[in-house]
Amino acid sequence: MRIAVDAMGGDHAPAPIVAGAIEALRADQSLRIILVGREDVVQQALGQVGSLSPKESERLEIFHCSQVITMEDSPVAGLRQKPDSSIVRLWQLLAERKVEAIVSAGNTGAMVAGGLRLRRFLPHVSRPGIAATMPTMQGPCVLLDVGANVSPRAIHLYQYGVMGAIYAKHVLKKEKPTIGLMNVGTEEAKGHDLAKETHAIFDSSPLRDQFIGNIEGRDIHRGVADVVVSDGFVGNVVLKVCEGVFDFIMRVTATELARHLQLERDRAQQVIHQLVETYDYSSQGGAPLLGIDGICIICHGASGAKAIRNAVGMAARLAAARLNEIIVQELETSPLTAASVEVG
Amino acid sequence: MRIAVDAMGGDHAPAPIVAGAIEALRADQSLRIILVGREDVVQQALGQVGSLSPKESERLEIFHCSQVITMEDSPVAGLRQKPDSSIVRLWQLLAERKVEAIVSAGNTGAMVAGGLRLRRFLPHVSRPGIAATMPTMQGPCVLLDVGANVSPRAIHLYQYGVMGAIYAKHVLKKEKPTIGLMNVGTEEAKGHDLAKETHAIFDSSPLRDQFIGNIEGRDIHRGVADVVVSDGFVGNVVLKVCEGVFDFIMRVTATELARHLQLERDRAQQVIHQLVETYDYSSQGGAPLLGIDGICIICHGASGAKAIRNAVGMAARLAAARLNEIIVQELETSPLTAASVEVG
Repeated sequence: MRIAVDAMGGDHAPAPIVAGAIEALRADQSLRIILVGREDVVQQALGQVGSLSPKESERLEIFHCSQVITMEDSPVAGLRQKPDSSIVRLWQLLAERKVEAIVSAGNTGAMVAGGLRLRRFLPHVSRPGIAATMPTMQGPCVLLDVGANVSPRAIHLYQYGVMGAIYAKHVLKKEKPTIGLMNVGTEEAKGHDLAKETHAIFDSSPLRDQFIGNIEGRDIHRGVADVVVSDGFVGNVVLKVCEGVFDFIMRVTATELARHLQLERDRAQQVIHQLVETYDYSSQGGAPLLGIDGICIICHGASGAKAIRNAVGMAARLAAARLNEIIVQELETSPLTAASVEVG
Repeated sequence: MRIAVDAMGGDHAPAPIVAGAIEALRADQSLRIILVGREDVVQQALGQVGSLSPKESERLEIFHCSQVITMEDSPVAGLRQKPDSSIVRLWQLLAERKVEAIVSAGNTGAMVAGGLRLRRFLPHVSRPGIAATMPTMQGPCVLLDVGANVSPRAIHLYQYGVMGAIYAKHVLKKEKPTIGLMNVGTEEAKGHDLAKETHAIFDSSPLRDQFIGNIEGRDIHRGVADVVVSDGFVGNVVLKVCEGVFDFIMRVTATELARHLQLERDRAQQVIHQLVETYDYSSQGGAPLLGIDGICIICHGASGAKAIRNAVGMAARLAAARLNEIIVQELETSPLTAASVEVG
């Protein structure tokens, strides 16, 4: 399994990126990792992670490139103006099948735009979508799209449902995943035109038995659906709102516990610290861009080494599970595929 | 100050609604309250709240109506098929200026549709919006719209910014409130067409000094903006996601603290309980439907007596603050008003 990692992408790159990639390399002997970035910078970061065994070194490569698309760069302009950037090179490596998977914590918009520009989508997929895993009372659920496609059509949302259900089954291990449509109320007639059209497509699709209809914002964390389908604008806002609320509540709770406890104050702070570790959105690894021919994992800009290690691990698992082949098969046998390709 | 309260609306109506209304009546001697609902049902609920003094009884009235729009009713069909429902009667009382304010925890869609049907909007307002107050690290902020208008135009969002800023100044007491536009990234070119158009309007408006541009989901609870402008679809999802995340985290935290603490376990549970009380979205009182000629407060379906008491108190404060007059003045002097009326 060959995985290219964007050594330059992320708020704290390259140190935690390189450290996380090396941790993943050490944990899985079947991995070959290509660190993409400025060679001197990457070498320096590598110097900080401790020496590698000869066997480990054999599985590591640096792919030098001279440019970086920053968080501030406009995605499209960045791709055009920086042809030798790590993000452009990642996509080329994937397109040329020199790697099975790519991982980046860099400019999300540029990563997505890079994929869209190549148009290496899976057969029958009109638009890729980013799938984020969220904790719920009933175990993890997958929310998609969280930002690849801010103005989708209904058929795109249907395809997100198909891909999300496959992801939930094969990665989250839900036997027959339920699918909910993000909306402002549970009644069928709720929401804007896009929501109503999407509801109608699901209702007459092969997924209708798994489709539980509209769900509301508060249903996500209750675990009402294994797959939550949303346009990329709403999904992105939801994902980041969760992060903000979590951070807010954990701070307030820590302060209040410190104020009111005495004997077990430290113990309580450890509990809070552990919860932050467990649920912190910036350590969650990454979110796959589903619908791409290849595996692409997009990480939180604030990713640390642990998040990158998890993201590389996820990339390896998705590639090994042949998730993309299953998606293509499922969409191939779907009566809606013809329509989706036509209007997509 | 005369306030009509929907005695029939809410998941637990009428008992907590009537109890909350009576608490508000007792707390503010300038209030006159009209309980709107089936007389026998309301009388029975009144029997449970303890006897009123003659002076209190003088300030209380029951407005009998025979029907109820339930949570399951379609808003538009409900209004048409149930002309003697409490929600229809509330709007009539407001339209006939028999009350200054109306309060309901009933079917939100029907409440909004009732207001839209009457079209008693403030001059220069194209569409009313629901304004929800949210806690942040920097004190409360106001998010609007949270569900009245799921497919708005850019000019509607601009008007929400105007009304939200007035609300933040006069109710949340922010001297010069900052306004952020809900989006998927902070860069100006981010988001869908609606977001870009709205950004452009704010940038060339009298509010441009207060407009801080796009904000992301995680910025809300950081308190980055005093006013968060959003379409009603996104705002509704955000509000309910916050509720869901909060509920989820508080449960998980309570469980973990119970598991790891011993001596101060009870004290820690009290702290969590107190936080739930403080931040619980269903006890927050209500959210005003801004842009209506009159005061309309929409409460959470799960509202208890405390939430209703707070909502009635809020209605009284908004009426006393002459918020609507300020909104009209502000929109009148805005160079965009002509345009807004034209395209509204």
